[in-house]
This record gives sequence, structure tokens and C-alpha cells, in this order.
Amino acid sequence: MTTAIKEETKINTMKALVYHGAGNKAWEDKPKASIQKSTDAVIRITTSTICGTDLHIMKGDLPLVTDGRILGHEGIGIVEEVGTGVTGFKKGDKVLISCVTSCGKCDNCKKAMYSHCRDGGWILGYLIDGTQAQYVRIPHADNSLYHIPADADENAFVMLSDIFPTGFECGVLNGQIKPGDTVAIVGSGPIGLAALLTAQFYSPAEIIMIDMDENRLQVAKTFGATKTVNSTDGKAVEAVLALTNRGEGVDVAIEAVGVPSSFLTCQGIIAPGGRIANIGVHGKSVELHMEKLWDRNIAITTRLVDTVTIPMLLKVVQSGKLDAKKLGTHVFRLTDVVKAYETFGNAAKEKALKVILRA
Amino acid sequence: MTTAIKEETKINTMKALVYHGAGNKAWEDKPKASIQKSTDAVIRITTSTICGTDLHIMKGDLPLVTDGRILGHEGIGIVEEVGTGVTGFKKGDKVLISCVTSCGKCDNCKKAMYSHCRDGGWILGYLIDGTQAQYVRIPHADNSLYHIPADADENAFVMLSDIFPTGFECGVLNGQIKPGDTVAIVGSGPIGLAALLTAQFYSPAEIIMIDMDENRLQVAKTFGATKTVNSTDGKAVEAVLALTNRGEGVDVAIEAVGVPSSFLTCQGIIAPGGRIANIGVHGKSVELHMEKLWDRNIAITTRLVDTVTIPMLLKVVQSGKLDAKKLGTHVFRLTDVVKAYETFGNAAKEKALKVILRA
Amino acid sequence: MTTAIKEETKINTMKALVYHGAGNKAWEDKPKASIQKSTDAVIRITTSTICGTDLHIMKGDLPLVTDGRILGHEGIGIVEEVGTGVTGFKKGDKVLISCVTSCGKCDNCKKAMYSHCRDGGWILGYLIDGTQAQYVRIPHADNSLYHIPADADENAFVMLSDIFPTGFECGVLNGQIKPGDTVAIVGSGPIGLAALLTAQFYSPAEIIMIDMDENRLQVAKTFGATKTVNSTDGKAVEAVLALTNRGEGVDVAIEAVGVPSSFLTCQGIIAPGGRIANIGVHGKSVELHMEKLWDRNIAITTRLVDTVTIPMLLKVVQSGKLDAKKLGTHVFRLTDVVKAYETFGNAAKEKALKVILRA
Amino acid sequence: MTTAIKEETKINTMKALVYHGAGNKAWEDKPKASIQKSTDAVIRITTSTICGTDLHIMKGDLPLVTDGRILGHEGIGIVEEVGTGVTGFKKGDKVLISCVTSCGKCDNCKKAMYSHCRDGGWILGYLIDGTQAQYVRIPHADNSLYHIPADADENAFVMLSDIFPTGFECGVLNGQIKPGDTVAIVGSGPIGLAALLTAQFYSPAEIIMIDMDENRLQVAKTFGATKTVNSTDGKAVEAVLALTNRGEGVDVAIEAVGVPSSFLTCQGIIAPGGRIANIGVHGKSVELHMEKLWDRNIAITTRLVDTVTIPMLLKVVQSGKLDAKKLGTHVFRLTDVVKAYETFGNAAKEKALKVILRA
Repeated sequence: MTTAIKEETKINTMKALVYHGAGNKAWEDKPKASIQKSTDAVIRITTSTICGTDLHIMKGDLPLVTDGRILGHEGIGIVEEVGTGVTGFKKGDKVLISCVTSCGKCDNCKKAMYSHCRDGGWILGYLIDGTQAQYVRIPHADNSLYHIPADADENAFVMLSDIFPTGFECGVLNGQIKPGDTVAIVGSGPIGLAALLTAQFYSPAEIIMIDMDENRLQVAKTFGATKTVNSTDGKAVEAVLALTNRGEGVDVAIEAVGVPSSFLTCQGIIAPGGRIANIGVHGKSVELHMEKLWDRNIAITTRLVDTVTIPMLLKVVQSGKLDAKKLGTHVFRLTDVVKAYETFGNAAKEKALKVILRA
Repeated sequence: MTTAIKEETKINTMKALVYHGAGNKAWEDKPKASIQKSTDAVIRITTSTICGTDLHIMKGDLPLVTDGRILGHEGIGIVEEVGTGVTGFKKGDKVLISCVTSCGKCDNCKKAMYSHCRDGGWILGYLIDGTQAQYVRIPHADNSLYHIPADADENAFVMLSDIFPTGFECGVLNGQIKPGDTVAIVGSGPIGLAALLTAQFYSPAEIIMIDMDENRLQVAKTFGATKTVNSTDGKAVEAVLALTNRGEGVDVAIEAVGVPSSFLTCQGIIAPGGRIANIGVHGKSVELHMEKLWDRNIAITTRLVDTVTIPMLLKVVQSGKLDAKKLGTHVFRLTDVVKAYETFGNAAKEKALKVILRA
Repeated sequence: MTTAIKEETKINTMKALVYHGAGNKAWEDKPKASIQKSTDAVIRITTSTICGTDLHIMKGDLPLVTDGRILGHEGIGIVEEVGTGVTGFKKGDKVLISCVTSCGKCDNCKKAMYSHCRDGGWILGYLIDGTQAQYVRIPHADNSLYHIPADADENAFVMLSDIFPTGFECGVLNGQIKPGDTVAIVGSGPIGLAALLTAQFYSPAEIIMIDMDENRLQVAKTFGATKTVNSTDGKAVEAVLALTNRGEGVDVAIEAVGVPSSFLTCQGIIAPGGRIANIGVHGKSVELHMEKLWDRNIAITTRLVDTVTIPMLLKVVQSGKLDAKKLGTHVFRLTDVVKAYETFGNAAKEKALKVILRA
Repeated sequence: MTTAIKEETKINTMKALVYHGAGNKAWEDKPKASIQKSTDAVIRITTSTICGTDLHIMKGDLPLVTDGRILGHEGIGIVEEVGTGVTGFKKGDKVLISCVTSCGKCDNCKKAMYSHCRDGGWILGYLIDGTQAQYVRIPHADNSLYHIPADADENAFVMLSDIFPTGFECGVLNGQIKPGDTVAIVGSGPIGLAALLTAQFYSPAEIIMIDMDENRLQVAKTFGATKTVNSTDGKAVEAVLALTNRGEGVDVAIEAVGVPSSFLTCQGIIAPGGRIANIGVHGKSVELHMEKLWDRNIAITTRLVDTVTIPMLLKVVQSGKLDAKKLGTHVFRLTDVVKAYETFGNAAKEKALKVILRA
């Protein structure tokens, strides 16, 4: 009988990475994720990963994250249980979790702007408990999960929860990259590299990668960058212009850092008629040189990933056109998630891109 | 014989409005415009008008304008002479002059970005002599002139040289206004009103006009604005938000002033998924609140008018869907152009929108 | 006690227009519509109308319609009851019913192609019981109903269930009508007129209406047609070409009949670079003159209405830009629906466009 | 002196492939191409090729081709002479000749529909003398020639005169191929293969190639086809559907043959929401199954190549993203053009795709 009680207790708890205020986190016991609404599903996590945004949270930059929150918004798993209103998924299905929750009903979801879903958007591991855990509850499961093959390479597919949709939607689609274009990507971290890989879906002629970390630039070259510019000397604008036709600049500039200086670089290198597609998460305002840009026929776009392209990306990955697992440099057991954060937090030194967590 | 000589002299001179440095201009004799290249045409001006940009030139804001330059980049006239390479026009044709010169051959012209023509763009009354004169030379005439009917209402059609294409291309097309949209236009001067009139081509549900001049707001109402906001109190953002669904802001914000504060207003009133279309000519940089906008899925566009829509606008005007002459509030004889500048320069007091110059 | 039982009986039955095989229908008792799934809603119909497709059903042209089916796929009503999974609507709400049911979850719904919803599409009054009844069950209520104001003019709004979305999406949007275009609409029945009215959202210069019924052409003129062509003499193609620039044809041809001859007319009048947008329901194949069209740079589109534009159309109607009730020529009590079918079935003689049914 | 006269004669004549009615052609003396208008250029051909259309001409299928016409509309060469109105090219420049002549001034050229240029379009080797000659006159040279590097691989670049723009514009662009799409191309001849190669600019997941010639299907596989279907048994539709998701068909079907049966195949395999992009030159009408397609939300497009994408294609080829010379299977001396026609005319037996002519 004692055993039975323990068993039950075990069943109703799980391990998860829990936020306890800036700088504090722990892999600890939490009540097991469970169905709260009929449209929920509970997923047993088999693979997860850490996002740069998780590091921001750990620094205390996102005040809406409260003590006790389970982090993580990326993952793959097996459906453990579904609410009575879920029709597209059943216990045992292998699923990809979108980092963005979509109700599928509101005005914004109907406009394919899931990021601004009236009852969702980015909430996982932010406003509700997330995926760096043994189990996670996914609201609006029918619109927020995607079937993947039972034998899918999870190290590849987990990159479709967030980083590839983000690089592709915010950078490549908003940048409207066309065959033959000259593209520059400012920032050769994971998100810039995701943009680099998905930019190649459209066969640009040149992709110039800009960063201060020589290692990351070398990685970019192996990922398809045709040119690289080390911006350590503060002369990235001149260097990029020198690489372009007539010195006029690039057709598409993708901002993948999120600081004023990289946004300024984009302004300096954009050709007339070009597009600046912002991916970076900005904490401050930037100076926009309208006195130079007003007559340049350019567009600047911002976007929180909608993950509307997950179905497209799944097809591309399955067809072998995108080797998604390339972004994963380190693999940890999920139980070692705290160690994984350390590695990811020292990305430059560790030469880490994405760190994968396997349950 | 003396008479004959004078006659010849007369034939070879013309009257024109000439710039003589900031604040100085005169209606004076100049050599008559003449063919310089085989693709030129000379047009006898029958109607012209004054642009806000001409006032900027007169203030000395555009240093590339040199002493002796004939101003003006808008006009209608009769073809006086064509170069041997001109095939689409002949002496006696009535034509509309585009404010932008297009060679039709360069990479930018082929991309329909005439504003950045390699041998043209905006040069009339700026880098070469303009249309506030009895005659004007138009380079690349085949691509820079448009046929209009001999009996066309010139007071209406002259608005298609610049102001309507500008309001329409930079504001309405770049803003991608759709039926049912809520649109705000910051600035109810001639250019904002041109945007207001052409925005209605796409049947938005609401057009909110913002200005500090109550008279101009009243005009806007008669031109189709559904709401007006007087921004004198510095609370335009709040006022506009209060007029929108859920207080979320507008689908399209059009900047038609060209100063930092109006650009800031646009940032404050744009709904998620919206577009800010800049028309204004900016002299300084502006603060861009990327810390608020990075996740709002918005687009900001800039554009120097290409006048690619002149053929479309001609059809719309001829079909009676756009009453283009509405923008003309005052008519002067071309010989009274100096007086016309005075009226236009005191637009608020004179309740002037566009002032028309008739030869 | 007897009374009580009767009461209950009454509550559980309703009146409805029931199909009993080709040519046979009756206004008769049926079990009251009720919730079957948690995502259903039951609507008490306050206004409905009859569609040309209903006449096709009555002729026996749609073999999937079985004996006992309640007809009708258009309507407005009051929410009577909602399933436990419905979150956007509650008892007492006034709603517009889309003719197309959308689950909001499947691949096609996510692509905004609700017409091909995996668990919906056009099923109302076709594969499930419809709206020509006192009550109707609406599956996937959250995605298939739209809020309208309690005081909405139902005679206007009921036109947004089907006919306006159909004319607009299949004709106007697929035709990509632009300001200044020359448009021809073949067929001046209700659906052609719906296309005519919504085409004007985009300010075409000319709209040429083609029909054999002079009365309908006269109506078209009052609805905004700039030209009309009576095609009784079989010379519509020549007549339309004579009305177009250089005799080259129209920019957009909208087929709003559904027979081979009208589709041939569209082929004959389309200018190079133009678009043929089909709305008509076709029962036979048509001859496509690829030997003439292969080098004409045209597009031909087909579409079953998706009703994705209902939110847009609601805004346009509420803003007063579309006088939707114009299409309703006759009003009947819902209980007189059989008589209403007679009038609608003799539309030419009765000069009927849409007949409205008021509960 | 006799010699001198001969020399001069020689200078004023050239060798060219001349059409003498159906079935008759000869490599013979013709007056050397010369400037006729100020916008002309004369090009000394260094590389040319033969098009399937040239075979049609030789069969007498194009009655507008008159006895004495020099054939050929593809080529690379060196500028020999330019008219006084040509500003973008000078003697000695290496150029690519577009198969379509564009004036750059007319309404259609301004809409980027060069194929319907009012003073051009496809005229080379059709209505005016062509490129299978030592010299060719190119009207509207500034808009119809493109600079290529002096050391360009002409066997690759000559494929950009016609076949790649045709496959790309009519097939791929009109088909709106997106990453992850399933594409079928009916016809694995040179034009179908050009579509296959350029389709890959957009990273479709699947490209299914359909033909009756097994050799061509094998070539298609080496060119990137993911699946092939031999249609000899008349069951291509079933075979393609079996290869697609749910048996629903393909997202994009490209018709690259020009006969009714292949167009019917496209109708049979297109999924709801899909696009049929016609490239084939059709000599007869086809049956269009509107009774099946009216509610399928599809688009059918036709197009005569505009060659507007030559600048884009030049960049793609120069960047190494397209190995354009792959299409050339045989190389002949220009003087052996008659022999080259024989080989090209027996393409299946000779396993010929494009045959290259080198001066």
C-alpha cells in the first residue's frame, strides 16, 4: 500500500526546469502537466532545446515571467492525453510543438498571424509552463501541434518549433528573397544561420554573412554563405558595399542580432528598392535615418514568428532540401538541462549553436 | 531688317521662373528650351503648378539646385519639337509631363523604379531646367511624357504630374490599403489630401485625417475623411487609438508631413500587422521604437514617387472616379508665378492647396 | 399534464423546407435542430434567402442531396444554444451564418481555403440540414458564424452569407481588378450583380455588363455598370471588343453564368495579360481555345467561395461603402418559402434578384 | 583592284540559314545585316542554337514566315555596330540576344509584358531576319540585348536567350512554385527540362517528370526530378495521383508539350488550390473540364515568354546556382547548321536536347 501511494505520487509529478527569478533556476519536481481545457493536450517531451530568449528570461529581461514558471517553448514529444475537444491528435502520436499557440478562431489566427492570437501567441515557457520538462500541456492542441513521422530524426525536427520558422518567416519571407538577389545577414548566431539556410530556398546569388565571431563566420561558410564580413573593426558597412554591384548595397538585409548597431548596419547597406527584415529582439529604440532613406524605396519589416510555415518546412525537411539538424552542435540529456544552459550561455567559447535536450 | 533680328531674338528666348539662391527668384528671360539629344522633346507649357518641394528649394534646403536654375517639375503642354529618336510624340500633341524622367532602358527603369533611373529620376526643376517657364526640354520624352486629350481639363490633369502619383504610390500602394481597412493619414496638406482621395480607390472603411490646421481638416471631410483629429494638443495617438477597434490602432498609417513627430505618431497608432507608408521628405533622423515594434509584424516603407501609375491614374480620372481638380484652390497666370509662390507659401492663411499656373 | 407534453413536443419540433426528390419540396415539421457535437451551435433563423443553387437542387441536378434534407445555406439568426466547445458565441448573440463550414484546423482551412475544409466546406442545405427552417445546427460554430450588431439590417447582412463573398472572391479578387481597369461581367443575374457591386471596391474605369435580359441590364446600370451589351444577337464578343481600347479586349472578364457559351465569350474578349475569373457552376466541359490563348499571357481561375472575406465585407457594409440590401427585390415570410421559390424560379418574369425570407 | 572589289563584296554579304518554304532551307549568302534605325545594333554571332519553334517553322506551321527569312532567335555575339540612338552598348561588347524584342516605351513594355511589345515581341527569325547567321540586326538594342562577361561560357549563356526564360517565366513563375510544393512537369524535352532546372530555384519537395521517352526521363532524374512517370500506357494521371498526398494531386502542373492530351493530364492531376502553367505552343483547342474544375480553386495560365527575367537569370548563372550548359548535348559549327537541324529534328533518336552552333 505504501508502494501504491508512492506510485501514484510519482505519476502525478514530473521533473522540469523551473525559473526562480533572475539568475536562478532548478531542475526540480513539479505537478505533472494535465488537461485543463477540452482543447488541451499533454505531451511527454522526448526532445527539447534552449532558445536565446530563454537566456534573456534568465537575465530577468522579461518581467512577465514569474517565479515558478517552467521554461522552454520548443519540443517534440508523444501525445500522452488529449482533451475531449481535440480531434486531430490521439495518445501515442509523435508531434512537433509550435512555439506559438494558435486558437485557430480569432481574427488574427484567421489572418495567419498566430503570433497575435487572442488566446495564444507566444505563451509557452513564458506565460504558461513550457517544454523543458518531462511533460507539457499544450493549449489549442489541434492548431498548435504538428504530426511528424514516428521515426523522425528528432534532432532535426525540433529545429522546426521555433528557430527555422523564425529565420524563415521574419527574415527570408519578409525579406522577399528572390533568385539572383544579393542578401546580407547581420548576425551569424543560430537565428542568423537559420535565415542563411532557409534563404537558400530561393536561390539568391550572394549571401554575405556579418558577425564579430570568426568561428561563426566559418560555420556560415560551410552553411552556404558566399561571403563573410568580420565587423569587429566597425567597418562592416563599407566592407559590404564594396562587395556589391556599383557599391549600391544589398537587395535584402536581415537583422539577426537585436541591437541598435546592427540595425544601423542594415540601414547603411540597403540598396534602393531593398528590404530590411528584422528578426532581432530589441530592447531599445534605434535611430532611423529617414533623411537618407525617405527616397530610397525601401521597406523595413518586423515580425514575431507566426509558425505558419511549419507545414511547409516539414515538407522541405522531409524532402531532404534542408538539413535541419546542422544547427545542433551539442546534445545533453534533458535531466542535464542546467549544464546545457551553461554551454549555451557560453556559446562563443563553446562553439555552440543549438544545444539539444534528449529525454 | 532690325525687326527681323528682333523677331529671331524673341523666338530664341522665353520667360521662366529662375532660382537665384535661397530666397531669390525672378520671372525673367532665358534662352528658349531646345533639343539637346535625339530623345528630347520641347514642350510649350500651357499649365503648371507649384510643389511643396519648390518651397524647400527656395529656402535653400536643396544645395544641388544652382543659381540660374528654372524651377518646376509639373506641367501640361503642347509638343513644340521632338528629337529624331522620339517616336511616340509629335509636334502639336497635348502631353502630361511626369515629374520623374525615365530612360526606359536601365535596370531600375526595367524594375519600374523610375525614381532611380540611371539617366533620370527627379531632375526637372532640380538638376535641369523645369516647367515653370514658357518652354521646357524633356529628356527621354517617349518615357517621360503621356498623351492626354486635346480638350482635357488641364487644371485636373496637371495634378497627375506629381501630387497624385506621389500620394497614391508612396502612400496608398505602399500602404496596401484594402477594402474595409482603417487608415490614418498624418498631414492634411495637398499631399495628404492626394493620399486621402486615392485611398478611396480601395474602399477603406475608415480614413482618419490628422492635422493641426482645422481648415485643412474640414477640407479633408469634404474629400472623404470619415474622422478627423486635430493634433494641436499633442494627443493625436490617444485620439486615434480611441477611434479604432479595441484601441489597437490602424491598419495603415500614412506619413504625409516629413518631421519626426508625425513619424512618431505613425508608430504609436499602427496596429499589429499594419503598415506605415512614408511620403514625407525628411530632413532629420527619427527615433524608431524597435523595442515596441519588433514583435508587431509591421512594415515601414519609403519611396520617391516613380510615376509608374500615371497611365492608371489617367484612366481613373478620365472615367470620372477621381475629381483631380479638387486640389486646385487658386489659379494664376503663369506670368504671375511670383505672386502664386506667395500665396502658396502662405497656404494656411490663404487656405491654399495647389495653386495652378495657366500660360 | 397533457398540455405539458404538447409543450415539450412543440419545443422539439420545428418547421422547415424539406426536399423530397426532384421537383418536390414541402414546408413541414421536422425535429428541432440540436447540438450534436461540442463545437456546434443551434441558431434560430430570423432571415434567410434562396440561392440559384437551391433551384439546381430542386431540379435534381445535385444527386448527393437526399430525400428529407432541409435546404438553404444562407441566413441570419439568434444563437439558441452552443456546445461546450464553442467559445466565441453565446445564447442570444445575433449572427451571420457562412454558407461554408470551416473547422479552422485542417490544412485547407489553414490555407484560408475553407471551401475545401476537411470537415466542412459547402455542406449546409446540401449534405446536412440547412437554413430555410426555424432552426439550424451549425457545426464548427466558432469558425462558421460571425457576430453582427443586434440592430443590423438583416435584409442587407443576409447577402453576406454567400452571394457577396461569392461575387467578390471568385470574381473580383480572383480577377485582381485594379483601379482604371476595364472589366466585363458575363451574366447580370444576382451573382453577376454581386460581382458588379464589389468590383467597384477597386475603382475600375469601365464595367461592361453582358446579358440577354434587358431588365437585368437596366438594373446593372443603376448598380454602376458603365456599359451594357445585350447578347441576344450572339455578337457579344464583337460588341465588347468595340467598346475597348484598340479593340484589344478587357483586363478582367468575369463569368457569372456557368454555361459553355458565356465561357467562350470570356475567351473572346480577354486582352493580352488579362484574367478570366469564373464564378459560374458548370455542368459540362467547355472548349478552351489554347491555339489562340497560349501566347496571350492570360490567367483563368475557378473557385468555390471560401467566405474568407466575410470579415472584410462586414466592415465595408457597416461603413456604408456597399449597399448590400440592393440585391433583395422581394420579401416573403419564412413560412411562405414555397411561394418565394416560385417567384425566384421565375426571376426574369418577376424581375426578381434575391428573395428574402423573414421569420 | 579586282581583289579590292571582291573584298568589299565579301564585307557586305554574310552567310545565313534561309527559309525557303516548308521543308526547304539553305545556308547561303545574304546581304550583311546593317543598321536601319538609330536604335538598332548589328551583332556578329559567335554562338546560336535551334529552338523547337524553328522546327515548326520548317514544317510550314507558321504562315507568317516568308520565303527568304533568316531563322533563329537565340544567340550570343559581339556588337559590330550600333545606331546613333543606342546608349547602352558599343562596338566590341559581348552580348546576349533576347528572343523577344522590346521597345521599352509602349504600354506593354512598361507593364513588363515585352512579349506584346507594340514594336517588337517575338519577331527575330520570324517576322525579321534572325540569329542563325553570321550577323544579325537587333532592333531596340538597348532593351533587347544584355551585357555578358567577355569570358562567359557561351554554351551556357546562350540558353538564356529563350529556353530558360521560357521555362522559368511561363512554367515556374506562373506556376508560383513555393518551397515544399509538389510539382509535375508534363514533357521532358528541352523546355520541360528548363522548367525542371529553374523550378529548383524555389526548393519544391517533389518534382514529378512525365514523358513517353525513357531516355528523357533518365535525363530528368539527373537534372533533379524526384520521380518520373512514363506516360506511354496512357495512365499518367493515375500514376501521378498515386504519388501525391491523399491522392489529391499536385500543387503545380506545368504543361511543356502543347497538345490536348498533355493539357488534359494537367487537369487530371491538379490538386484543389493548384495552378496549371502552360508553356506548350498549342495548335488546337483543348477540352476544359469546367464541370470538374469550377469548384477546385485552381488557376490556369498562358504566356509567351517576356524575357523580363534575363537579368535575374544572368545573376543566377553567374553565381553558379544554375548550370545552364547542361541543356546543350551537341555542338556544331554554325556553318554546319543544316546538319544541326537534322540532329535536333531527330532528338529522341539522337538523344539531343539543345544543339549549339558555334561560329
